[in-house]
Amino acid sequence: MNEYASAQRRLCFAVQNRFGDGDSMSERPSGEALSAVRRVLDRTLEPSRIRDDPTELEKYASDWSGAPPVLPDLVVKPRSTEEVASILRAANQARVPVTPRGLGSGKAGGSIPIYGGIVLSLEGLNNIEHVDRANMTAVVGAGTILADVWRATEAEKLFYPPDPNSFDICSIGGNIACNAGGPRALKYGVTKNYVLGVEVVLPTGDIIDAGKATLKHVTGYDLTSLVVGSEGTLGVITKATLRLLPEPASIETGVLHFANVHTAARVLTQLLADGHQPRTLELLDHHALDALRQKSPNLFPDTIGALVIAETDGTSDERAFADLQQLAEAALAYGALDVQVAQNEADRRRIWLPRNTLSESLRATAEAKISEDIVVPRSHIPDMIDAAQRISDRHGVKVATYGHAGDGNLHVNILFDRDQRAAADGAVLDVLKAAISFGGTLSGEHGLGMMKRDFLGLEHSEHKIELQRTIKKSLDPNGILNPGKVLPRRAISSPQVEAK
Amino acid sequence: MNEYASAQRRLCFAVQNRFGDGDSMSERPSGEALSAVRRVLDRTLEPSRIRDDPTELEKYASDWSGAPPVLPDLVVKPRSTEEVASILRAANQARVPVTPRGLGSGKAGGSIPIYGGIVLSLEGLNNIEHVDRANMTAVVGAGTILADVWRATEAEKLFYPPDPNSFDICSIGGNIACNAGGPRALKYGVTKNYVLGVEVVLPTGDIIDAGKATLKHVTGYDLTSLVVGSEGTLGVITKATLRLLPEPASIETGVLHFANVHTAARVLTQLLADGHQPRTLELLDHHALDALRQKSPNLFPDTIGALVIAETDGTSDERAFADLQQLAEAALAYGALDVQVAQNEADRRRIWLPRNTLSESLRATAEAKISEDIVVPRSHIPDMIDAAQRISDRHGVKVATYGHAGDGNLHVNILFDRDQRAAADGAVLDVLKAAISFGGTLSGEHGLGMMKRDFLGLEHSEHKIELQRTIKKSLDPNGILNPGKVLPRRAISSPQVEAK
Repeated sequence: MNEYASAQRRLCFAVQNRFGDGDSMSERPSGEALSAVRRVLDRTLEPSRIRDDPTELEKYASDWSGAPPVLPDLVVKPRSTEEVASILRAANQARVPVTPRGLGSGKAGGSIPIYGGIVLSLEGLNNIEHVDRANMTAVVGAGTILADVWRATEAEKLFYPPDPNSFDICSIGGNIACNAGGPRALKYGVTKNYVLGVEVVLPTGDIIDAGKATLKHVTGYDLTSLVVGSEGTLGVITKATLRLLPEPASIETGVLHFANVHTAARVLTQLLADGHQPRTLELLDHHALDALRQKSPNLFPDTIGALVIAETDGTSDERAFADLQQLAEAALAYGALDVQVAQNEADRRRIWLPRNTLSESLRATAEAKISEDIVVPRSHIPDMIDAAQRISDRHGVKVATYGHAGDGNLHVNILFDRDQRAAADGAVLDVLKAAISFGGTLSGEHGLGMMKRDFLGLEHSEHKIELQRTIKKSLDPNGILNPGKVLPRRAISSPQVEAK
Repeated sequence: MNEYASAQRRLCFAVQNRFGDGDSMSERPSGEALSAVRRVLDRTLEPSRIRDDPTELEKYASDWSGAPPVLPDLVVKPRSTEEVASILRAANQARVPVTPRGLGSGKAGGSIPIYGGIVLSLEGLNNIEHVDRANMTAVVGAGTILADVWRATEAEKLFYPPDPNSFDICSIGGNIACNAGGPRALKYGVTKNYVLGVEVVLPTGDIIDAGKATLKHVTGYDLTSLVVGSEGTLGVITKATLRLLPEPASIETGVLHFANVHTAARVLTQLLADGHQPRTLELLDHHALDALRQKSPNLFPDTIGALVIAETDGTSDERAFADLQQLAEAALAYGALDVQVAQNEADRRRIWLPRNTLSESLRATAEAKISEDIVVPRSHIPDMIDAAQRISDRHGVKVATYGHAGDGNLHVNILFDRDQRAAADGAVLDVLKAAISFGGTLSGEHGLGMMKRDFLGLEHSEHKIELQRTIKKSLDPNGILNPGKVLPRRAISSPQVEAK
C-alpha cells in the first residue's frame, strides 16, 4: 500500500514541481476564513457534528489509495441534506475547500483533503428510506454501506448488481461518485446503469433532485449522469434512487484453463460475440499464476498459462447450469485446455480463492507493487498483454495482469524493488500510454482522483479538458468543492507529460 | 396531425403572449448578421451545400410534431464534421441561430427553426464507418437512418435494441439527441444505454470526442450523457459509437386478455417483480379497444377490457418459447382471462395489427387528437388510468390510453371535436399534472422541444431549471444553438402555469 502511494506520489509531485499548480483553489484556507466558516457551523449544527481533535483529523486524512495523508482543518458530519446545504453555503461564502467523503475506500485519493479545509463526511446519511418491490427501486442515503443496500434489497428478492471488491466497507455515495464497477459489470453494467436519480447539494448550497424514479424520461439535461463519476467535484450526493433487478435464482461457477493469455483473450471475445452472457469472466495471466505457484507449487498443471473464472446466473438452476455448460463446451471447441465446474459451494470457493488472494500473492513476489486500472477494447487484450511484456523488459520490472477481461478492464500490476522507483514510474506511464494507444482509457472503475488527474491529457484533447473546466467553473465558481481532483493542473498537457 | 399541432400551439402561445419571451436569442437574425454568415459559408463550403430557395426552405420548416412551420433563412447541408464546425463558428461569430436537424421525425418540434436563421441538416453525414463484431460496437454518422444501422449490425449478427416507431425515417443522431425509446426499451433500455461515445461540435466550433469505445471508463465528466437527450441545444452530434448486443436467435409473441386495465396493470407489475423479462409489454385500455371495435366489431370478446401484447426473445427457440409460456401461465394465475400465443408469422402480425393501427383508429373516433407521452412508476399505472377517466369526465373529452406499460410509458390520447379546443388544452395540462403527481414525468421518449418546454416547471424546481440554464449558458454563451427549445421561457414557472 505504502509502496503504491510513494510511487504514485513521485509521479504526481514530480509533475507538480515542474509546472506549478493551476487549481482555482490551491492552498490551505486562511485562519480568518476558517474562523468565519466555524462561526456559522457552530451556530447551525449540533456541536457533536463538528470535530477538530487531532485523532479525528488524522482519521479523515487518508483513504485506501495509500496516498500520503493530508490533515483537514475540520471534519464535519452532517445528519441531513439540509445540514450538508448549510455547510456548503458557509464554506462557499468563506472560500474554504470542502472534500466530500463516503467511507474512504477510494483507490485514487479522491477523498484526501489536499488543500485542507473541511472533510464533509457523509457517513451519517446512512438511512435506507425504502425498497419498492413493485417498481423495483430503492431510495438510500449516500453514506449507506453497499453491503447494507444488498441486504435490504435481497430481503425483497431484488438485486443491485454493482459489486466493487470493497462492498462491505464502501458507501453507495462513494460508488456513485466514482461510478464503481466490479466483476458482474460484464453482464450487468456499472453503477451509472443503476442510478435513476440523485439528490445532490451544489457548492452554492442549492439542493437539486436530479433524475426520476421512472425508467424513462427525456425532460431536460441528464444531470444525474453528470454527477455520477464526477468524484465529488460538482456536487455532494446526499441520496440516491437506485434501479433494481429481480434476484437471480441461481449462480454457477467454472474455471477455464488456457495455454496462454492470447488464446484466452481470443476465446473470451468469441464467446461473447456468440451471445453467451456470463456474469463474470475474470482473467489471470501467467505472471499472476506464477505468483500463486510460488505459494502452492501444484495449484495448476504446468501447461496452463492463463486462467479464466466464469460465472453464469439465471432464473432457475437448470438455466444457469445449461448456460455454463454451453459456454464451457464452446470454450473447449475454441481452444481452452480444460474446464472445471463447481459442484458445490466448497468447489466454488476453491475456484475463487486464487483470484481473491492474488493481490496479496503478487505483493509477496516483490518489495513494491503498483496496480493500474486500465480498460482496452476487448479485442486488444492480447495487444495490451504483449505491450505489458515489452514494458516489463524495457524497464526491468515484472508486470502481472489480471482483472475483468470480459469488459476489457485489466488490473496491470507493476512489481519492483525499492531501488527501482524511477523504472516503476516509467513503466506506469508506458502502461497508461499503451492502453490509450489501443483505444482504451486510464481508469475503468477507480476514477482519477488526485492520483491520475495529471494524466488526463494523455486521453482527452485540450478542448475536451477545457469543456470540463467550463462545466466545473459554472457549477462551482469559487472552486471550493474537492479541489485538486479529476481535472489536471492547467499547465499539464499530453505532449509535456509524454516528454517526461 | 394538424389538430395536435393547433392544440399544442394554443397552449404554447397562450403562455408566450402572457409572459413574453426570455430566450437569450429570441428573434430572427438581422439581414446584416445573415449576410456576414453567408459570406463565410460561401467561402468555405461548396455552393451545393447552401440552400435558400423557397421549396427547400419550406421542406426544412417543419417536423413530425405537426407544429406550425417556421421558415429558416438558410438550409446548410454539411458533408463532414469539419464543415459542421465551420458553420457553427461562422454562426456563433455572427450571432445567427442554428437549428440542428436529423431527418425531421421528431414529435416535439425540436428541429423547427422558431427564430429562423440556419437549419443545419445532418442528413449528409450518413456514413456507417464500421461495425466491429469482436468488440460489438459500431461507429455511424449522425444522419444515418436507424433502419440502416439495424441492417448493418444484423449483417454481423449483432443487435442495436432501441426501436422508436419511426425507425425507417429517423436518424440515429436525432434518436440520440432525443434519447429515443420504443417497445423494446422494457427489456433493453433506451438509446442512452447504447451510446458509448459521441463526436459533437460545440456552438463555438470546437470538436469534442466524448466517451470511449470501451464498456467502462471513469475519466472525467460524462459528457456523452450530457449530450444525449439534450435535443441539440448543447452541441451538434456528428458521429456516434454504439454499443451492440448479440442478435437474439428467436422471438415469441403472445396476447393477454384482461377484464379491465386495473387487473392488467397489477398483473404486469407482478410478472416483472417475479423476474420475467419480456422484451415488450404493450397495453391497450378499453377506450382503445372500443376504437378498434368500431371498425371490426368482433375483434375481441365483449368481456375484454384491456389487452397486453407480450414478446420474449432469447438465445434459442426453446428458451424464448419457454419464457413466453411461463409468463402466460403466471399471468393466468394472477388474473388474465385468456392468453393466445402466435404459432407463426401470420399469427404474430395479427396480434400486432390492432396496436399498429391504433393511432389511426383512434383518430377516426373524433375530429381531433392530442397524444401525450408521459411516464409513471409502474405501480401507478392504475392510478393514472383512473385519473385519465376523471380528466375525461371533467373536460368532456374522450381519453384513450395505450403504450409501453412495462416501463410505465403511456401514450395518453385526448380525443375531441373541433369546438372543444379549450377543453382539450385543459385536459392535456391535467394529464401532465397527474403524471407528475404520481412521481412521473412529462416525456418518456419524445422530448420537450418547443411543445412542452414551458411545462418543465411542473416537474423541475426553480433551482434545477436554473442549473440547466447555467450549463446551457456555459456551453453556448451566445445562445445560438437551437434557441427556444427544452428550457422554459424565463418568466414561466409552475405556479403560473397552474394558475392557467
